[in-house]
Amino acid sequence: MTHMSDTARDYSRANAERFRRELHDLLRIPSISTDPAYAPDVQRTADWLAANMAELGLDKVEVMPTAGYPVVYGEWLGAGPDKETVLVYGHYDVVPAKMEDGWDTPPFEPVEKDGKIYARGATDDKGQLFIHVKALESYLKTAGSAPINMKFLIEGEEEISSPNLTPFIKDHLDLLMADICIISDTSMRTIDEPAILHSLRGMTYLEVEVQGPSENLHSGLWGGATHNPAVALVEMLGKLYNPDNTIAVPGFYDDVVPLTAEERAMIAKTDLTEAQFKQSTGVRAVWGDTNYNIRERISARPTLDINGLWSGWSGPGVKTIIPASAGVKLSSRLVGNQDPHKIYEQIKAYLESIAPPTVTVNIKLVTTGKPALFPFDIPEMQAAARAYEKGWGAAPVFTRGGGSIPVVAEIADLMNIPVVMMGFGLDDDGLHSPNERFSIEMFHRGIETAIVYLDELAQL
Amino acid sequence: MTHMSDTARDYSRANAERFRRELHDLLRIPSISTDPAYAPDVQRTADWLAANMAELGLDKVEVMPTAGYPVVYGEWLGAGPDKETVLVYGHYDVVPAKMEDGWDTPPFEPVEKDGKIYARGATDDKGQLFIHVKALESYLKTAGSAPINMKFLIEGEEEISSPNLTPFIKDHLDLLMADICIISDTSMRTIDEPAILHSLRGMTYLEVEVQGPSENLHSGLWGGATHNPAVALVEMLGKLYNPDNTIAVPGFYDDVVPLTAEERAMIAKTDLTEAQFKQSTGVRAVWGDTNYNIRERISARPTLDINGLWSGWSGPGVKTIIPASAGVKLSSRLVGNQDPHKIYEQIKAYLESIAPPTVTVNIKLVTTGKPALFPFDIPEMQAAARAYEKGWGAAPVFTRGGGSIPVVAEIADLMNIPVVMMGFGLDDDGLHSPNERFSIEMFHRGIETAIVYLDELAQL
Repeated sequence: MTHMSDTARDYSRANAERFRRELHDLLRIPSISTDPAYAPDVQRTADWLAANMAELGLDKVEVMPTAGYPVVYGEWLGAGPDKETVLVYGHYDVVPAKMEDGWDTPPFEPVEKDGKIYARGATDDKGQLFIHVKALESYLKTAGSAPINMKFLIEGEEEISSPNLTPFIKDHLDLLMADICIISDTSMRTIDEPAILHSLRGMTYLEVEVQGPSENLHSGLWGGATHNPAVALVEMLGKLYNPDNTIAVPGFYDDVVPLTAEERAMIAKTDLTEAQFKQSTGVRAVWGDTNYNIRERISARPTLDINGLWSGWSGPGVKTIIPASAGVKLSSRLVGNQDPHKIYEQIKAYLESIAPPTVTVNIKLVTTGKPALFPFDIPEMQAAARAYEKGWGAAPVFTRGGGSIPVVAEIADLMNIPVVMMGFGLDDDGLHSPNERFSIEMFHRGIETAIVYLDELAQL
Repeated sequence: MTHMSDTARDYSRANAERFRRELHDLLRIPSISTDPAYAPDVQRTADWLAANMAELGLDKVEVMPTAGYPVVYGEWLGAGPDKETVLVYGHYDVVPAKMEDGWDTPPFEPVEKDGKIYARGATDDKGQLFIHVKALESYLKTAGSAPINMKFLIEGEEEISSPNLTPFIKDHLDLLMADICIISDTSMRTIDEPAILHSLRGMTYLEVEVQGPSENLHSGLWGGATHNPAVALVEMLGKLYNPDNTIAVPGFYDDVVPLTAEERAMIAKTDLTEAQFKQSTGVRAVWGDTNYNIRERISARPTLDINGLWSGWSGPGVKTIIPASAGVKLSSRLVGNQDPHKIYEQIKAYLESIAPPTVTVNIKLVTTGKPALFPFDIPEMQAAARAYEKGWGAAPVFTRGGGSIPVVAEIADLMNIPVVMMGFGLDDDGLHSPNERFSIEMFHRGIETAIVYLDELAQL
């Protein structure tokens, strides 16, 4: 087996420039899923990707329809039923990009400069997903086989919140079934500190509206006997937190899986200093629950944030009104094993319990996403760590991601398998920003790491 | 004297229709001060009014320039230096009006219907100011003199907050100096319940901005260790009120002149029931400081309201951000003898004292207006009450206005004289709304009341 992965690695090195040329072709198609004007380009990207994969020698490659943009599915099951199967998830769609946003070069004309490929989608996620395609090619074009079975699930709607992905997975569960899922759609701090994410936070997003008078009132004529709905709202929201910066919603922390001493020791290695945090965010001081270090607070602990707040007149100058209503968008980042719907009910019940009788409070759930938490001592995670050591050249840290990728929990739940998040991007790749970029060195080290990982998984 | 006012009253009755025709002419000019496109019309209205007043036989009528629209000044000082002088303040400008706002007839084509004159400005303030012009005419065209000296100060910028009025008064203090000021620019509940306002609330209006991170942050990447500025703001604003609905700002009530038992008894006569308040405002329940009745709360007690509140994303859908900042517009309605600048300093000091060190709080004063409070047992007020009894046919109540007309306190302070607010409108005249109207009967009863009042003042 070692011989086979060495050969694959040599092939990937020999074909490095061609791999990048192909990636440039993929990046050239503006597969902007958020703008219907680009629908033909999104479709064309799926076709391009399917054609590229078909040339590798997969058993099956198919552009499969959904209610929205299609899924590119591919499989190579030549390792046989005794071997495990890896499912690679990725997305071929991108967010919008225009020169006037501040790009130095046209976002859909990839250029290589200073060791990086500049293009929209370079790191998110075309460059990263392509790593796994090229890793498999490196086996199939040398040994004619790979050490393990592989399936690809590449969607075109990640940037619009994957509205059709869960139905697609449910409808094709047998086709997609695997033993482990790999996602490369995240990042590390520096090239020498590769990170495997074993957790993501989930989300409960809700909206609260407080209705006072039936329309805006003259504050002179009615002020003093009218409960201002904005006042009522801020009084309620002022009770969301305890003085120690923990969340005051009863039961909120009940289902949080406690951090083990082992994990806390590991997280401590990637903690940020106060100075680093202030530098990155521009805040005056770090805030939060001082029972946890900064890295824990932003990745391993749940949150409750105000995302939007509105009432009355926010334009220039003076309006002397008692607003008819006031509203807030609130969202909670959740950790294992918090249930987004249970959290919603808890927040709702709490807000209703502190709502004054002088106003009407309407609370509605906007969206949810389950948190994902996988043990990092399972063989598949440890195999990934070995793959980094051998393929990347540095031992990875296992970290928790503070953000939310709902599909991770969906795949884990529907297939009852672990998801290994091997992010090959850098934190400062500028995803969703002008001059998005992807390190050329990391693209190639990613392919070698993926090659080794397939080998390591086959040996479990 | 009585004879003289009887004759004047008879004249006003005999000329009732002509008075209204003249008022129609005044209403026909769209003197919209808020829209520069109407500048020639505003100027034309000043000229029309000056011409109308000149025909009465005044000593002097002048259209006097300001940095904005002119003041129409007029004086008749024939009663001699031994007699007191009345200054009538009014405004000839109006707010915009268009058919498509819901008018049944063109807003600048006055029509008489159901006993009312329908036109923009009918009650606010052309119809009301014209009452005093026609009252003086009724004396001058009969006796050739009036029982007391009169001056008119009619401005054209009331609807744009009178930016040039205080400088004008200061520059012409000798010219304008009087012993009492009369303003008819307010209203009563029903024709049988005339009201004299002896107080108005003042105002302190401020803006508070809380700055957190230097730009909006991803709530997944940074949430948990970043003090959300909207959370910081609501926590601060949640402490503006005490549990008993009094304002928690230290020292806020220090300078409030306590209500006397006599005034409370008088206010009780015009109190609203909870049902009336709910009916008028659409609120679920009445709110406020239960040590005071509803009328006291909305007119004789100070307030603190949120007029506007904003942070982050208030549009449709989801943005998972920690907003960079959050802001609020706050205003306090003040009562005698609260000082708007002192109140600003108190609110600012309080907010700064409860501001957390994790955010930057910027507080700025936007505008102020002094409260006005005149004793209602002074001879000028009691004379007005007698004038209503004789001229209107009903004894008035002395009430406090909850709103703010900053010029009232300015005139009172600069001239050290009382201001008697004899409002001849009805609460439901629809000022600033479509189909603004003014009762024909009240126009004429207003003139007769004004005639009697001049007589009563002369007898003090």
